[in-house]
Amino acid sequence: MSQKTLADLNACSKDEFVAELANIFEYSPWIAEQAAASRPFAGVQQLFDAMKSAVDRASPELRLALIKAHPDLANKTQRAAGLTVESSYEQNSLGLDRLSDAEYEAFERANNAYRARFGFPYIVCARRQTKDSVLRDFDRRLTNDASAEMQKSIGEVCRIAALRLDLLVVSEDRLKVHGRLSTHVLDTHSGRPAPGIAIELVELSELGTSRVVTRTVTNADGRTDQPLIGGRPVPIGRYELQFSVGRYFADRGVALSDPPFLDQIPLRFSVSEPEGHLHVPLLVTPWSYATYRGS
Amino acid sequence: MSQKTLADLNACSKDEFVAELANIFEYSPWIAEQAAASRPFAGVQQLFDAMKSAVDRASPELRLALIKAHPDLANKTQRAAGLTVESSYEQNSLGLDRLSDAEYEAFERANNAYRARFGFPYIVCARRQTKDSVLRDFDRRLTNDASAEMQKSIGEVCRIAALRLDLLVVSEDRLKVHGRLSTHVLDTHSGRPAPGIAIELVELSELGTSRVVTRTVTNADGRTDQPLIGGRPVPIGRYELQFSVGRYFADRGVALSDPPFLDQIPLRFSVSEPEGHLHVPLLVTPWSYATYRGS
Amino acid sequence: MSQKTLADLNACSKDEFVAELANIFEYSPWIAEQAAASRPFAGVQQLFDAMKSAVDRASPELRLALIKAHPDLANKTQRAAGLTVESSYEQNSLGLDRLSDAEYEAFERANNAYRARFGFPYIVCARRQTKDSVLRDFDRRLTNDASAEMQKSIGEVCRIAALRLDLLVVSEDRLKVHGRLSTHVLDTHSGRPAPGIAIELVELSELGTSRVVTRTVTNADGRTDQPLIGGRPVPIGRYELQFSVGRYFADRGVALSDPPFLDQIPLRFSVSEPEGHLHVPLLVTPWSYATYRGS
Amino acid sequence: MSQKTLADLNACSKDEFVAELANIFEYSPWIAEQAAASRPFAGVQQLFDAMKSAVDRASPELRLALIKAHPDLANKTQRAAGLTVESSYEQNSLGLDRLSDAEYEAFERANNAYRARFGFPYIVCARRQTKDSVLRDFDRRLTNDASAEMQKSIGEVCRIAALRLDLLVVSEDRLKVHGRLSTHVLDTHSGRPAPGIAIELVELSELGTSRVVTRTVTNADGRTDQPLIGGRPVPIGRYELQFSVGRYFADRGVALSDPPFLDQIPLRFSVSEPEGHLHVPLLVTPWSYATYRGS
Repeated sequence: MSQKTLADLNACSKDEFVAELANIFEYSPWIAEQAAASRPFAGVQQLFDAMKSAVDRASPELRLALIKAHPDLANKTQRAAGLTVESSYEQNSLGLDRLSDAEYEAFERANNAYRARFGFPYIVCARRQTKDSVLRDFDRRLTNDASAEMQKSIGEVCRIAALRLDLLVVSEDRLKVHGRLSTHVLDTHSGRPAPGIAIELVELSELGTSRVVTRTVTNADGRTDQPLIGGRPVPIGRYELQFSVGRYFADRGVALSDPPFLDQIPLRFSVSEPEGHLHVPLLVTPWSYATYRGS
Repeated sequence: MSQKTLADLNACSKDEFVAELANIFEYSPWIAEQAAASRPFAGVQQLFDAMKSAVDRASPELRLALIKAHPDLANKTQRAAGLTVESSYEQNSLGLDRLSDAEYEAFERANNAYRARFGFPYIVCARRQTKDSVLRDFDRRLTNDASAEMQKSIGEVCRIAALRLDLLVVSEDRLKVHGRLSTHVLDTHSGRPAPGIAIELVELSELGTSRVVTRTVTNADGRTDQPLIGGRPVPIGRYELQFSVGRYFADRGVALSDPPFLDQIPLRFSVSEPEGHLHVPLLVTPWSYATYRGS
Repeated sequence: MSQKTLADLNACSKDEFVAELANIFEYSPWIAEQAAASRPFAGVQQLFDAMKSAVDRASPELRLALIKAHPDLANKTQRAAGLTVESSYEQNSLGLDRLSDAEYEAFERANNAYRARFGFPYIVCARRQTKDSVLRDFDRRLTNDASAEMQKSIGEVCRIAALRLDLLVVSEDRLKVHGRLSTHVLDTHSGRPAPGIAIELVELSELGTSRVVTRTVTNADGRTDQPLIGGRPVPIGRYELQFSVGRYFADRGVALSDPPFLDQIPLRFSVSEPEGHLHVPLLVTPWSYATYRGS
Repeated sequence: MSQKTLADLNACSKDEFVAELANIFEYSPWIAEQAAASRPFAGVQQLFDAMKSAVDRASPELRLALIKAHPDLANKTQRAAGLTVESSYEQNSLGLDRLSDAEYEAFERANNAYRARFGFPYIVCARRQTKDSVLRDFDRRLTNDASAEMQKSIGEVCRIAALRLDLLVVSEDRLKVHGRLSTHVLDTHSGRPAPGIAIELVELSELGTSRVVTRTVTNADGRTDQPLIGGRPVPIGRYELQFSVGRYFADRGVALSDPPFLDQIPLRFSVSEPEGHLHVPLLVTPWSYATYRGS
């Protein structure tokens, strides 16, 4: 599927419009169909609002059908039969295509419990989550009543749709669906930003194996050229940032103990706002360090 | 073997004196025999100095014999045949009685390379080391020449002897063979020491599995009732201290994100001076923390 | 007046006992007289409790007389006529014997307003206060009703008495009337305590001139040999600690900017609990520093 | 004098060009005259380089004359007779138009000692200095030999010229003559930037009275809308930043001691690089704070 400009979507025939946006809401072209009447749109946010209005106006039966149109998370049978391109991409972002056996079982158990309780599939906007946060989310939502859970599911459906729309449509405005995770290393031994520090960002998992999200190196300003995570939601979850400060100070000829008091520094923290900007800096000498949630 | 007072050792017969101290230096009663002439001793430090003088005065042949009297580290055949009580205790403190296969092989390879190069067994004061630090020590000492390495080995023999003497003899003075590792948690959110924080001290290992050294909880003063490590050398090596701060702040009703930005905080550091006092405090709010090598 | 042991006070005649303690409560020997009946005392705390009980049992008229037995704070006429030794010592600790004209006027205004409102002199335990805190205390207490203010005054009378008793009587136990202010300088550039740092503690004053409380130098452990304030209450008030770190780092040959980024570091804080232990450490490199309320 | 575009200066007659730039170097139009030959200039940096080349090429006599064309600093007689607009502006930026008597005397003494030693006036780029730093600069330069001091003086003359040129000429490129001083307040008690904190920046003076440089308030991002100092060199000197954190936390209903442990926080530091960016942030809770030289 290739990107479309908002201008194209405003100008094309209604059929084309519906075809292009048919899967913004999973297997539910009726939403695009209703939104088509509101053309032209001044921006992608306005387009999204029109589609969301169609969902909000829909009957309970239709809303339930919308929910049921979504696949289970990590369902092997469904994956074998084929998901939409979008669902496949989203589930893979969570690592659902490479689960360990223990993880697979945990997801299957959670899916079954959820279906048994509510009669419809569990839906979550996978790109805002990690495996751990999804399993915690299952636990909480299982305590909801059916009506609250329908509402919650529609909310997640809309988040999924917003991210799909953001990928598909080129517009001057942007939907507020992205977050950012950044860092900065200040060498308070020399009073300068610390360049050349190797950094690794790891997504921690209680259940299975942790996963390296990115490896990078600080630039002359002690920052990274690219944000650690950017241009997408920062998934809710636990992370560890590791900074190779031992080598940095050794390379500068600073007198160190043997082995150095500080070598690989781990900062462990959680992300709770996928659309926010989270800044996790490191202030460091060979003998001390500090971090804080910055901005 | 039961402890002796210095007064007893000053008063007993020479034969008894030598029998009691025969194994302070592994299988080398001649050292106690020479030291006996200097009785009475004003303190255990003076006793140790007399024994060390005997070693210093000894001929190269005798010093080599002293070195060769020691067993290999982690040698299964020798362990099966039986070590001295002291050697067994010392090697076990390093975890040499429960090595993984990979670790066992690494030690065997190192022992063999060392023996092939120097013709005598590798000796290190095991109670001042971790498995990782011993393997690094092997690597370095393999680059020594034979004479420097003899000198180094005698130094380690004396460290072993000092720790044995400290265990055996009750005296008003103490040999300076112990170190201390301590911590302190300051809650800078409320401006008070943080009580009730669960702490875990882990010895890290590159080769094999990491090992929990101790689990404890902070007291009303934010400290631990006992030092994390005390009354013995603090083994050279890499460690991680973990503090359960998420639960601490949640229990106090502090507003947190979900999941909390900080939950389990790891401080990773190395010990380089087994006889020193290393203080590793944590200053913490729900959104920031700092540590430093204190005193 | 010379110190007495508790044993002496337990053993002497009733007249001697009353004579010795006549001025523990200003010009009010009847309190000692009543307490005498409870001899012998196991400790000075028990003695104080007996005296305080006499005050608590006294009639409103007697309690008012006790209050009125005290001089005004900073009243020149009364000072000229002569205060008790104790009152003189206490008022001088506040610096009331060397007020500027502006300060003198502020105290006179406050005393007059207080007397006009309540009909008895304002009493405060001067050794727990600074000039600034007394003037703030005046403002607050002027909003009390007469009954609450009587109660408050008796409380201050008892605090004064406790400090006088602590000075007079030598006993194995101590009244809890002293606090402590301490500091500690950690050089996180070298990972060591910082010795030889010149420190100045200044009591700040909004009204008049600030006053140097003490000048000292850090010892080998980065601490001061004596607490900055100890063996007495730490007066409620605002303070500034100044640390000469520029010279310290320059003396150690650390590369600095010119002029050095940090030279004289001021830490400004307030004391609110005169009987507590307040620890105000400094963690410092040539380019950064931190402080916190420690313990 | 009104600003000129570089295009205008490239296009105008030589006489006009020289007239416009006659005072870039104090009373020395010959420099502009020589530079005119290199027109057109691609940028203001190139124009400055051309003028500086003229100075570098000049004979020792001419260079001395250039130095002597400058007025003394803080010379009352010369001020009464009238300075160039530029000199007047520059000297006033240092506060030389409002010296205390003690300051005036210190400057006169320094000027006289300098003239007696070198036979030409002391020149310094005043906009890069504070009164204190100038007096220290006098002391140092008095130890130079005449040749080094000529060289140093010409360097300062060129710095003055660059700042004058930057004011006069509008070009797409900019001379690197400006610095920046900024701050940022992070509330690590709530994990957010701290808005609404009153800040005062004071230039400290050992000799005379300190001077408020700016008063401002932090914005929603914990920063200030404008840099504390920007669009000009940051004068070499000692400063104190004061942050009203007591009121900030009280306004948010945070439980504080009475009086609050921290109320007005002073950060005292020196500036050494007038053209650099100096960032001095504050990380603060009601019970702790930290700062560092950031970037």
